[in-house]
Amino acid sequence: MGPRGAERPAALDAAGQLLDLSGVIEDITGAALSGEALHRIRAAVDGGGLPVLAAEGLRIGAPLGYPGKIICIGLNYRDHAAETGATLPTEPVMFMKAPDTVVGPNDDVWIPRNSAKTDWEVELAVVIGRTARYLASDEEALACIGGYAVVNDVSEREFQLERQGQWDKGKNSETFNPLGPWLVTADEVPDPQNLGLRLWVNGKQWQNGNTKDMAFGVAEIVRYLSQFVVLHPGDVINTGTPAGVALGQPEPKPYLRAGDVVELEIDGLGRARQQFVPAP
Amino acid sequence: MGPRGAERPAALDAAGQLLDLSGVIEDITGAALSGEALHRIRAAVDGGGLPVLAAEGLRIGAPLGYPGKIICIGLNYRDHAAETGATLPTEPVMFMKAPDTVVGPNDDVWIPRNSAKTDWEVELAVVIGRTARYLASDEEALACIGGYAVVNDVSEREFQLERQGQWDKGKNSETFNPLGPWLVTADEVPDPQNLGLRLWVNGKQWQNGNTKDMAFGVAEIVRYLSQFVVLHPGDVINTGTPAGVALGQPEPKPYLRAGDVVELEIDGLGRARQQFVPAP
Repeated sequence: MGPRGAERPAALDAAGQLLDLSGVIEDITGAALSGEALHRIRAAVDGGGLPVLAAEGLRIGAPLGYPGKIICIGLNYRDHAAETGATLPTEPVMFMKAPDTVVGPNDDVWIPRNSAKTDWEVELAVVIGRTARYLASDEEALACIGGYAVVNDVSEREFQLERQGQWDKGKNSETFNPLGPWLVTADEVPDPQNLGLRLWVNGKQWQNGNTKDMAFGVAEIVRYLSQFVVLHPGDVINTGTPAGVALGQPEPKPYLRAGDVVELEIDGLGRARQQFVPAP
Repeated sequence: MGPRGAERPAALDAAGQLLDLSGVIEDITGAALSGEALHRIRAAVDGGGLPVLAAEGLRIGAPLGYPGKIICIGLNYRDHAAETGATLPTEPVMFMKAPDTVVGPNDDVWIPRNSAKTDWEVELAVVIGRTARYLASDEEALACIGGYAVVNDVSEREFQLERQGQWDKGKNSETFNPLGPWLVTADEVPDPQNLGLRLWVNGKQWQNGNTKDMAFGVAEIVRYLSQFVVLHPGDVINTGTPAGVALGQPEPKPYLRAGDVVELEIDGLGRARQQFVPAP
């Protein structure tokens, strides 16, 4: 919570109060999700006595400082693959976003200069809590997940699909990965494969999916990725978006314009709101 | 220089001596490449009196701590595009590596489990020294380059090309981006478009290119990328490889096997040597 670059870590308690964690941990990083630090945070929250932050008017930063890397899964919902004219892949499609694309859940998103096709994607973000290499089972994979968050996997479709080569070109513009509002620890998400995801633009609903329709569930994604990369605490996985993006609509497609407001939410993970503005 | 996780920053002086910079800067990061810190390093080196490190037996770490992101340019040499059967792109192809793939120039590289097609790629790495957004000219782009280094853009071709979707899946295995030995500041590289690049496997030469044969030169690459992403000090760009990779050879292609030793060098940027071993 707080101005960019001067955020304080905070916890939301059962009563909906924001508790200042800056006396307990320096920042919410991968390290804070693993073992001892998480235990310390829980004890401090349960013990009471943490200072309560006045949320009113306070900016919410991304609920994870310094992600190590962001891996994205493409075409992971049947209906989204269909709307983009793509075949559903038989194993997860992987691409990447740079850690510096992350902004707070309610921060402005910058429409890149020369962009005509800036698009939205509500997604379930998985935050890794334990190092993962060559996992053998879904159980091992679930044990490596530290928590979950809402993410808007903002995409520029011309840059992604019409400017030669790989998708990364349309996925990495500055501010293109608003994350949060909350990082909900895995123990508070009993079934990550039954979460509704919804997204609105200027109050009109465009996406209304459920993680039960993923082609590859979160455990399978983490297990699969660990065969190709090492996953470290604090790494983030954007697990794909359901149908309803601008790219999937008939012409003229409703790509985002300066002034548009995107709101998105996932069951139990909170709600985010971003205004789209021209890149300065 | 030094054991992994406990490296000390060092400078190589004109006499070939290694000077300990740990009293001057904490680490060689993007910040050390920009303005004041670089000035301080130069003054300390020129002033004499820095402790000399005994290089013998000392491990060389990557000459850049904590890169922010690694952007890679694909198919950037005519002869390499031809050998892989690809058309030369009309604008740069961009994909990504995670910062955690970086290891020292002489560290072991891990052949992933279930890999049959681990390949080499000698490349000129560009290290950004100044923030770059929407650059208008090659001159502005060159001014944002902090330095250059040798990199082996290690690739697993089955993961990259035969496992669905995007190239990133074959580019991001642990240890897949050995960087260095040196980071040579841009002022010491008068013409980045006239550098010989060479690579050997077990003493047999496979690559022998020159950066003058790039389809897109380093200034054009930096200018172009700045239209799609922000480049920060400490970001790295792998600028593509010339012909001579295993993928480009007739069957049976000479992919890397455990025990193989890859050596690579670029004019003025030093020489690296990696043994390939099975991922533990």
